[in-house]
Amino acid sequence: MAKKLSIKGIEFSGIASGIKPQGPDLGLVVFRDGANVVSAYTRNQVKAAHILYDRKIEKRPVRALVVNSGCANACTGQEGIDDLGKVASSLSPLIHTDRREILFASTGVIGKRLPVETVLSALPRSTEALSEGGLDDFARAIMTTDTYPKVARRTVKGKRSYTIVGAAKGSGMINPLFATMLAFVFTDFPVSPAIIRKPFKEAVKESFERITVDGECSTNDTVLLFTGRKGEDPDALGAFEKGLQEVLKDLAMMVVRDGEGATRVAHIVVQGAKKKEWAEKIARRIALSPLTKTAFYGCDPNWGRIIAAAGDTDVPLDPAKIDISIQGKTVARGGAEVPFDEDKMKKLMDAKEISVVVDLHQGKASYDIFTTDLTYDYVKINASYRT
Amino acid sequence: MAKKLSIKGIEFSGIASGIKPQGPDLGLVVFRDGANVVSAYTRNQVKAAHILYDRKIEKRPVRALVVNSGCANACTGQEGIDDLGKVASSLSPLIHTDRREILFASTGVIGKRLPVETVLSALPRSTEALSEGGLDDFARAIMTTDTYPKVARRTVKGKRSYTIVGAAKGSGMINPLFATMLAFVFTDFPVSPAIIRKPFKEAVKESFERITVDGECSTNDTVLLFTGRKGEDPDALGAFEKGLQEVLKDLAMMVVRDGEGATRVAHIVVQGAKKKEWAEKIARRIALSPLTKTAFYGCDPNWGRIIAAAGDTDVPLDPAKIDISIQGKTVARGGAEVPFDEDKMKKLMDAKEISVVVDLHQGKASYDIFTTDLTYDYVKINASYRT
Repeated sequence: MAKKLSIKGIEFSGIASGIKPQGPDLGLVVFRDGANVVSAYTRNQVKAAHILYDRKIEKRPVRALVVNSGCANACTGQEGIDDLGKVASSLSPLIHTDRREILFASTGVIGKRLPVETVLSALPRSTEALSEGGLDDFARAIMTTDTYPKVARRTVKGKRSYTIVGAAKGSGMINPLFATMLAFVFTDFPVSPAIIRKPFKEAVKESFERITVDGECSTNDTVLLFTGRKGEDPDALGAFEKGLQEVLKDLAMMVVRDGEGATRVAHIVVQGAKKKEWAEKIARRIALSPLTKTAFYGCDPNWGRIIAAAGDTDVPLDPAKIDISIQGKTVARGGAEVPFDEDKMKKLMDAKEISVVVDLHQGKASYDIFTTDLTYDYVKINASYRT
Repeated sequence: MAKKLSIKGIEFSGIASGIKPQGPDLGLVVFRDGANVVSAYTRNQVKAAHILYDRKIEKRPVRALVVNSGCANACTGQEGIDDLGKVASSLSPLIHTDRREILFASTGVIGKRLPVETVLSALPRSTEALSEGGLDDFARAIMTTDTYPKVARRTVKGKRSYTIVGAAKGSGMINPLFATMLAFVFTDFPVSPAIIRKPFKEAVKESFERITVDGECSTNDTVLLFTGRKGEDPDALGAFEKGLQEVLKDLAMMVVRDGEGATRVAHIVVQGAKKKEWAEKIARRIALSPLTKTAFYGCDPNWGRIIAAAGDTDVPLDPAKIDISIQGKTVARGGAEVPFDEDKMKKLMDAKEISVVVDLHQGKASYDIFTTDLTYDYVKINASYRT
């Protein structure tokens, strides 16, 4: 597995540095030949130190990425940004690169300073542990409340065979309009930021912006794509873009399936809308409703909550035209109930993935999004996250 | 207690009719001298049968109000509206009034038809139970997941002494921009709808639109004010409006304190905003955040989640200027943490009401709203509500 995920010249490590009381918390990636980078960041106006720091750097090729869990390094002012500069200064001689070629990302509690000394003293171990097969270690080191590491992989055929690998972490603060998480994609496919930026943003939109756990938008959301710099293969660009989309979609689905406390995922499809943006607005409203999400948890075919959520947007709609099906079974037609066997529906809904289709019968546009159920464990995890 | 809450000529009852498997579920109010009525309904586009029905009636004085719990009678089409007509036809001879002088309100599960025969056969018992001291029975009959009946009362001095009494039910689907609940206010103060409509709407805005439990907007939200029709006392209008505001505020606070599964209420104040609407947007975003709400449950002074929620709106703000205090203790200044004793803060937050003040330092406008914590019990109640 580890071997299959490797890309020549890209080395990973993930170690326990001591930022967290226990467990791996410091991920490192070194690009021996450098990498181009494109990015997508949180829309939250409160942005973590690493975003403010990276933005100044990522115009040029980079040599390394440092990702820590256990501390978001957000709302830490200029000191938080300076802390990253200190880490870069200590790391650069160890990996023989310029300090301005190192990017950062962080995840964890907001408002706490990064324990810089702890990180600095761990850097030698972190660099010693680097290996081309270390992606899984890296993926473990960036986890917070995730229950498993998230990696995905595709190969792309061109002049030669290229590899795309990705690692992501969730699992709360996951929001549409930008899923709140960290994701990093690495490839040896050679492409310039100017060419890949737009397809990358589009792929993010179709993957991480199509999932939600709790409607929260973090200060740290980051997706970075690192591409190769040697050679060129424009004929394979289409195939690469497809592979990139698939890797991002795979990671996004892993993130939503591992949403905090989630026992199942609901796939919300809104169709028959006059405009796609209308379908999207309604799909997002349903996906964020605590009442539909608790009903999914309870395997409750409570279509009334779904139609109530649909009605609670500014999208003009005629409730008397709305059909709703759950797990392929029509439960409401023309805005009124179609009799169904409650016990059978409950059994149908007791699945890892629930399909909900809402048809507005007003046009041909549609939108779909994945959400989680809302469970005791979501409350448990988030009532006691800091303690 | 019952006697003090009474108004001459207004009779109440609340009985168990059998709509629910057990417990009172049918409330009735009869206005012997008729009453003027003004209303505020849900902004949800999907509206319950009673709203569609009442709207045609409430232009004229009314003689009775029937409120049932256990069935929302929403998404039930024309049949749902016709069902109310049947109940009105059966009730009118029993209370010697015209069928077009009877209003309705419902709360319960969406999408199920009202069991009309059950209601009809209970009407004689319902009318026999009427009494001027029956407000508390009425308040009990309209409860769903409420843990206690909600009544409030004020007297107003004018030419004579007037009484205002109110009853409300919550306790989930409580949303700003219109708290999702039923509330009814009764008074012998004589005033025409034309005069009281605007102050009434304003009082609703300052009470029920300033609370939230779960951000859900129901299909059934209704606030009705029934006023006297005999005599006039324009000099006492100001005093009456004040009393009305206080009764609505009392009821709203009871609703939020009894929010589904809530263990405490958080009072979110956003101040120092350039515009009131900006302060409101940020206050609502904080009040609806599952992460701040779970932190309130866990007595966690997690100001990072509060500032992250504040940053997640389209209100322009400078995170580096934001101060946050919890229970009067400053935990963040200039967007960064002010060191505090975690254990002491936890103890301070272990209260029935938590105060959170966010100062944007950009102007002089402010807004405040009350929200609940998000608890295991919210999930429990809503994962199994129908079963």
